[in-house]
Amino acid sequence: MNRKDLAPGVASRRHAMLGTGVLAAAAGPAAAQVPAAPAPLRVASIGGFHVGGEVRTLTGLPPREVRLTATGPVRRIEVNGDYMVGQMYVQYVKLAAPSARHPLMLWHGGGLSGACWEDTPDGRPGWQSFFLRAGHDVYVSDAFERGRASWPRYPEILPDEPVFRSLFEAWRTFRFGPPDGFNLDPAKRRPYPEARFPVAALENLGRGAIPRWASSDAFTQRAYAAYLARMTEPSVIVVHSQGVAFALRAALEAPEKVAAIVAVEGSGAPDPATVDMARMRNIPLLMVWGDFIDQDPWPAYRRAVDRFAAALTAAGGKVDLMELPARGIRGNTHMIMHDDNSEEIAGLIQGWIAAQGLMKG
Amino acid sequence: MNRKDLAPGVASRRHAMLGTGVLAAAAGPAAAQVPAAPAPLRVASIGGFHVGGEVRTLTGLPPREVRLTATGPVRRIEVNGDYMVGQMYVQYVKLAAPSARHPLMLWHGGGLSGACWEDTPDGRPGWQSFFLRAGHDVYVSDAFERGRASWPRYPEILPDEPVFRSLFEAWRTFRFGPPDGFNLDPAKRRPYPEARFPVAALENLGRGAIPRWASSDAFTQRAYAAYLARMTEPSVIVVHSQGVAFALRAALEAPEKVAAIVAVEGSGAPDPATVDMARMRNIPLLMVWGDFIDQDPWPAYRRAVDRFAAALTAAGGKVDLMELPARGIRGNTHMIMHDDNSEEIAGLIQGWIAAQGLMKG
Repeated sequence: MNRKDLAPGVASRRHAMLGTGVLAAAAGPAAAQVPAAPAPLRVASIGGFHVGGEVRTLTGLPPREVRLTATGPVRRIEVNGDYMVGQMYVQYVKLAAPSARHPLMLWHGGGLSGACWEDTPDGRPGWQSFFLRAGHDVYVSDAFERGRASWPRYPEILPDEPVFRSLFEAWRTFRFGPPDGFNLDPAKRRPYPEARFPVAALENLGRGAIPRWASSDAFTQRAYAAYLARMTEPSVIVVHSQGVAFALRAALEAPEKVAAIVAVEGSGAPDPATVDMARMRNIPLLMVWGDFIDQDPWPAYRRAVDRFAAALTAAGGKVDLMELPARGIRGNTHMIMHDDNSEEIAGLIQGWIAAQGLMKG
Repeated sequence: MNRKDLAPGVASRRHAMLGTGVLAAAAGPAAAQVPAAPAPLRVASIGGFHVGGEVRTLTGLPPREVRLTATGPVRRIEVNGDYMVGQMYVQYVKLAAPSARHPLMLWHGGGLSGACWEDTPDGRPGWQSFFLRAGHDVYVSDAFERGRASWPRYPEILPDEPVFRSLFEAWRTFRFGPPDGFNLDPAKRRPYPEARFPVAALENLGRGAIPRWASSDAFTQRAYAAYLARMTEPSVIVVHSQGVAFALRAALEAPEKVAAIVAVEGSGAPDPATVDMARMRNIPLLMVWGDFIDQDPWPAYRRAVDRFAAALTAAGGKVDLMELPARGIRGNTHMIMHDDNSEEIAGLIQGWIAAQGLMKG
């Protein structure tokens, strides 16, 4: 959507990538240049809230003298005090007449916020929009210490400093191309030949990169538990990367709040030896994998997910595997929801959701 | 909306505070207990994007060894590299048939994110929902270093550490009650007798508190400039607290992109001696103030805003003042969009917007 932020040629590449009318909905100013927008969504309510967390009290820290506004006075800020810590953020769009039986939640992965489910880096409608148009009430969340969930002081609350992901680390870890294919000049980037991530818009992915901690899992798991506990019915969870381990554990803890899980490129899973797999025997699980999985660290990451899936299957669970290359769909990166065929893959996921009997009628 | 997070009695207090049907839209599970939801919104598109920012390259920092997922390997993370810095985040909801002539932007204040415009801490629909139902396309943003805009390393990019606002600092700075009226026990809180903020839900405001820097103004101003530059038409900017100084300066820099400014409880403004006030002579400005303005630091903050308004008036500008107590509306705190009469005040603002000729027909 953000043409000014895109490298020359991206807009035209985008049109080549998808000639679909939904682009008009996101293109705004460019609407006249593309097919007509789809029918309006009939929305009952839009909003957001925070959930989970607890009061933590800081003591023994010195006050600070800070000028918070250029034309304001220097103020003495008391650092000690009571803070809310461990909460997460949820934004919801509820339809007037959803065709899905249950809400659909989008849980992000590491170093990202729920914004990764909105417009793609090259400005196409994201999966939030897709699943709304498919008839789901959609809940998009920011996990603890990400985005609008806020983050707490360290080392007082979290012991270590956060991890910041550079453009190169995203390029390498998300399997866009070989390490020496990275370049700050979009015109000189050399992705894997079939790679589907819009690498000319890499900067927009970088704009959405959120610092993340390696020491926050316990807080995050509690926040997701509070989020599910707050819901009055089970939800379909579509979850990416780091979020997958949280979603599987949350489902084991509260299976009555989970209708199905779509695990997109999971980076981990609970150790089956430490949990009662039978608790999620009745929760359909779909695992979605892109291409280039042989690139480090993905073989190790996937092993943990496969081990969980095998144990769930052995416990009588329903586990489906969607390996895109095995279906002849090549070139998907770790950021499947941003790749140039993101709508096609969302459609495959929607088909699986429908096949589980989770749509009305 | 988040009943589980609210102190006993808040839900019932909420019903007492507003018997309006719009509560049903946000109440979800409680919908059956309250009046019917309003008519559906007809939404053309919904999404989000990042805008602004620049590449900053870090060098000379040691790598880190981190295990990013419990079941994954310890990985060597290169800290040096290229990062996007200074961008901001925008979420948009575009109506199928807006009755407003231009988009309406909601800009948050200090220590908060755009989430402050969604549901109120006690679970009523926020101003995002109000202005959508009033017929505006609504854009809600997170400024640089807040929420989904992400934040950069310090001291490498920003020199100092951020400021975290405790529940007590919010209580005092936002004028909910006297310092000795604060208590962690909601039942023991003693706000100003007429104060309209739902103090039993103070924790939910604390859940949305975002660390903020005192050294980020230049980045933030550039990001807002990029945001306005990206828009293809002028917008009505409804802006709170810290955001007011950014909005006034942005309007002076790009008056063609600003249709009107509603400055709610501004904490500062550019020094008129340093700017060309005539540049925003044709941009209507409304200043909205709540009650208890005599509480520190508000007299000093307001002086800067009044000085700007006086200079704009002298330069031939159109400036209106909405002092709520002078209208007999007592008890509004700094968080007017969260107070128990938030819909009433939004209605007054909508009336002013309409009076400027900014609605169709």
